[in-house]
Amino acid sequence: MKYIFLWSSGTQFDITHLMDLTAPIGIFDSGIGGLTVLNAIASVMPSESTIYLGDTARVPYGSKSAETVARYARECADFLYQRNVKAIVIACNTATAYALQELQFHFDIPVIGVIEPGAHAALNVSHNKYIGVIGTAGTIASNGYGRMLKSMDASATVISRACPLFVPLIEEGLLNHDITHLTIMHYLHDMMHASMDTLILGCTHYPLLRQALAAYLGDGIHLVDSAQTTAATLHTLLTDQQLLSSEQCPGKHHVYVTDLPMRFEHVAHQFLGHLPISISRIDF
Amino acid sequence: MKYIFLWSSGTQFDITHLMDLTAPIGIFDSGIGGLTVLNAIASVMPSESTIYLGDTARVPYGSKSAETVARYARECADFLYQRNVKAIVIACNTATAYALQELQFHFDIPVIGVIEPGAHAALNVSHNKYIGVIGTAGTIASNGYGRMLKSMDASATVISRACPLFVPLIEEGLLNHDITHLTIMHYLHDMMHASMDTLILGCTHYPLLRQALAAYLGDGIHLVDSAQTTAATLHTLLTDQQLLSSEQCPGKHHVYVTDLPMRFEHVAHQFLGHLPISISRIDF
Repeated sequence: MKYIFLWSSGTQFDITHLMDLTAPIGIFDSGIGGLTVLNAIASVMPSESTIYLGDTARVPYGSKSAETVARYARECADFLYQRNVKAIVIACNTATAYALQELQFHFDIPVIGVIEPGAHAALNVSHNKYIGVIGTAGTIASNGYGRMLKSMDASATVISRACPLFVPLIEEGLLNHDITHLTIMHYLHDMMHASMDTLILGCTHYPLLRQALAAYLGDGIHLVDSAQTTAATLHTLLTDQQLLSSEQCPGKHHVYVTDLPMRFEHVAHQFLGHLPISISRIDF
Repeated sequence: MKYIFLWSSGTQFDITHLMDLTAPIGIFDSGIGGLTVLNAIASVMPSESTIYLGDTARVPYGSKSAETVARYARECADFLYQRNVKAIVIACNTATAYALQELQFHFDIPVIGVIEPGAHAALNVSHNKYIGVIGTAGTIASNGYGRMLKSMDASATVISRACPLFVPLIEEGLLNHDITHLTIMHYLHDMMHASMDTLILGCTHYPLLRQALAAYLGDGIHLVDSAQTTAATLHTLLTDQQLLSSEQCPGKHHVYVTDLPMRFEHVAHQFLGHLPISISRIDF
């Protein structure tokens, strides 16, 4: 077991920062969508272990108020911190929009969200800086992506659209069904008439619709998958801060849920493929 | 103000049963769907006041486990009881399926759910006793309607189907849209090939899809709206127990929500038409 000393933002050494590099990465989401982020992290950093918390008893966050989402996010992050994680990933766009800054201020370990990585990747691939964003009602109303994109490139034009039917369609397993194609057209028709050349999938469920979205949008529009971009950002951050695990064996993945909904394992499998996980139910 | 003495099941008089007839009727639901029941109650008994609790911070119940739904239902009913309601209506099919019996046992005021009234009405209008039931995943998995229908008429044949996309479609306001028509066909196609002559709308949101469902199903199939049947059952119960208000003025309607979601008033208006309500947000 190897330890590394981390300093807080000042120069004072703080004993609470003694870090076990084999400690797991903490990930939380309102439900199961963030499993796409877990899957991407396990793919990029296979020897890292993770603890995932899905707040399935209170899902969805996307339609709830900012204040309520921020309170739930604090409770989720506290739960992970108490389990000695070495970093926290907010694998939920709505919670990132409403709680990232507060959680970064509150905790003495790295906390990242899914918005900045997605916005950064979108600006990198876009030629004309006309960038579309789709997400839940909460994510779009928060304008988290719009503000982030504008702060990174003031010349960017952002076109956003809430797509509340995508999550239930995905959870129904209708990834390539006429209803889904019609719903994609309903939501994206107007965006297609703009000059958008890049579309951010601003909800952790949406990578499962990637194929259907690409079929509708055609080759001219880049799709930015925030699960992949978040995993890549986390990898860079852990490398820079010398927090990567030196283990050679595959990491372990434990999933906590606040409710064990029907068909959970079936739905989780859609998100995780063959990644082995253990599952516990906890009460909040 | 008029009081009536009620006796508990034994012969002992219990002072806590002293009942104010102008006391409101308590109604609760996981969210806003139960507003169809509130609307039906206000229509049948216009001088009754109501207190409605929508547990919008934890909506939906339909995809959560039986244990979690029962716990939430107890908390909602306690909230209403503490506000001195004279009866409690569980305006949520999932909560009725998982919690009605416990709540009836626990409280000393009448508690009714939405399942028995719907099942009773369906058996009354069906000729061949082939009865379809549609609802959320939780309501259908609980088989609450199936058990109730069979206990009332052992010869009945029950065909049920979970329709998880209907609630998000209604909340998106797509009541008469191609996506909705295609989704109705997706869910009900197989039921149409059975001999079903009656379909129970086993979710309090579904009355808003009544027109689109009737257009697909045609004239040969009766639709049973559990909001209307529950209001009629409550009216009979309050009449029998001499609990009807003697007020001549229109009742007052106060809605409590555990979260004030975006577009709440807009969506509530779809359910309530022009019924005036006041709204408060509470924390649970």
